[in-house]
Amino acid sequence: MNPPAVKDFLLDLQQRIVVELERLDGRPFRRDAWEPPGGGGGLTCVAEGGALLERGGVNFSHVFGAGLPPSATASRPEWAGCPFQAMGVSLVLHPRNPYVPTVHMNVRCFVAEHAGAGSWWFGGGMDLTPYYGYAEDAAHFHAVCRDALAPFGAGYYPRFKKWCDEYFYLKHRNEPRGIGGIFFDDLNEPDFDTCFALSRSVGEHFLPAYLPIVARRNEQPYGERERDFQAFRRGRYVEFNLVHDRGTLFGLQSGGRTESILMSLPPLVKWRYDWRPEPGSAEAELYRTFLLARDWV
Amino acid sequence: MNPPAVKDFLLDLQQRIVVELERLDGRPFRRDAWEPPGGGGGLTCVAEGGALLERGGVNFSHVFGAGLPPSATASRPEWAGCPFQAMGVSLVLHPRNPYVPTVHMNVRCFVAEHAGAGSWWFGGGMDLTPYYGYAEDAAHFHAVCRDALAPFGAGYYPRFKKWCDEYFYLKHRNEPRGIGGIFFDDLNEPDFDTCFALSRSVGEHFLPAYLPIVARRNEQPYGERERDFQAFRRGRYVEFNLVHDRGTLFGLQSGGRTESILMSLPPLVKWRYDWRPEPGSAEAELYRTFLLARDWV
Repeated sequence: MNPPAVKDFLLDLQQRIVVELERLDGRPFRRDAWEPPGGGGGLTCVAEGGALLERGGVNFSHVFGAGLPPSATASRPEWAGCPFQAMGVSLVLHPRNPYVPTVHMNVRCFVAEHAGAGSWWFGGGMDLTPYYGYAEDAAHFHAVCRDALAPFGAGYYPRFKKWCDEYFYLKHRNEPRGIGGIFFDDLNEPDFDTCFALSRSVGEHFLPAYLPIVARRNEQPYGERERDFQAFRRGRYVEFNLVHDRGTLFGLQSGGRTESILMSLPPLVKWRYDWRPEPGSAEAELYRTFLLARDWV
Repeated sequence: MNPPAVKDFLLDLQQRIVVELERLDGRPFRRDAWEPPGGGGGLTCVAEGGALLERGGVNFSHVFGAGLPPSATASRPEWAGCPFQAMGVSLVLHPRNPYVPTVHMNVRCFVAEHAGAGSWWFGGGMDLTPYYGYAEDAAHFHAVCRDALAPFGAGYYPRFKKWCDEYFYLKHRNEPRGIGGIFFDDLNEPDFDTCFALSRSVGEHFLPAYLPIVARRNEQPYGERERDFQAFRRGRYVEFNLVHDRGTLFGLQSGGRTESILMSLPPLVKWRYDWRPEPGSAEAELYRTFLLARDWV
């Protein structure tokens, strides 16, 4: 294993994504470097109030910890409490235009030590959360996800697609967060180089997956009705991230930098009691056609 | 123990509170009765868009469960997984005027069965979350909390006040949720009648604790600046309820009615990256003087 190479890749990926988003957003991101208490380093890149992004963050962090918290070891209990390092790039973008979907992407690498032996694993993925659904956008996003994984074997996309549908699911709402994408964790087979290459490929495919959707939707005119529905649906995003998301819990439990972790929360959110869209409306269409686990490619 | 008497009290308390709030709000609450899957019953009373309440709920629920979830047995692990019934009234009010504090009150009773033996305990409390702090409001609220507990012994208020400060604390922000109040859980001494009487007293003292503050603040004029700060601070309320609050987790884990549980979430919320109030401003005063554990009476 080669953590420095992973770190170099992650920092470079972050900057390439930020530069591209800055171009679309019409102004620079704010860049905040920070130092975790146990060593390592973080670089939070944030946009607020830009032409494209009402709020968005592309974060790099590299943290060392004395003991892996429960959120990181759910499926590998033998590593609970072991010293570890974790590094990753995590992004969440909340566009202003309700026709442009919210998007999330993450690539991460863990290295843990246990009784003198080392263990490593990768995780990551990307998923799309539209407010107004378009089948061509969903098909495009999933096709790029599939292409990102294809060089490593045809089995990865269906497996990671299903994992994503299961992971980004709001049990308390009986509702998926969005139209999914891919998600993986605990990846350490067949070997380090292959796992790193696969994770790199996921990161590299983020811009090709998302930017064509931005290009198609960002000029669509919208009004108060669409903004209102966007603010309402963003409430589900908050609920998922604070109640269910392992990455958020890991960050908060491991003493991460709160402002960087909670960059994932939307800028403006509404909660309303027991609200449902009018049958037949564009808003109802999101629930009827898009908030289902289905095959998009 | 006498669960039916508790239930009668709770339903009556709920209606007395709702009727008083309806008078101030200028219109009726919506009332939704619902049936939990395992028996019992719920009555959710909701206000949205009224003169006083931008959003608020006063909920009664009585649920039966096959096994107590972890959130209910943190301090009594011997009862984990036991059949139980739980009943309570829980309210959260989010006024529109940023000078009127958000408030929370809860009274609850658990009955669990274990190896043929029964066990019961009470919990509850109330706490205040101002956006703009007033020492006289904080002193009044805490004085009523103290008065509610005084008949049962002088030791309860300091103990439950401290418990409240500790419980309503956002570890990831290193910040209290508000100016506190009282909180208690696992109360089963010296006997059922005393514990029930104490819990009743807490519930009965809610209106005297809160309404004088509403009367003092609800006519204070406010503008966009105050609304903006209120929406920003409400983000902390969401973070607390979804990340830390045992009652919310218990509800979601025990298959409670999501729309009733999440009535506690504010109607309009903003998140902003690393925002801090200008030193010397009224907004900074909240942090400097009120968001501290201190003695108000």
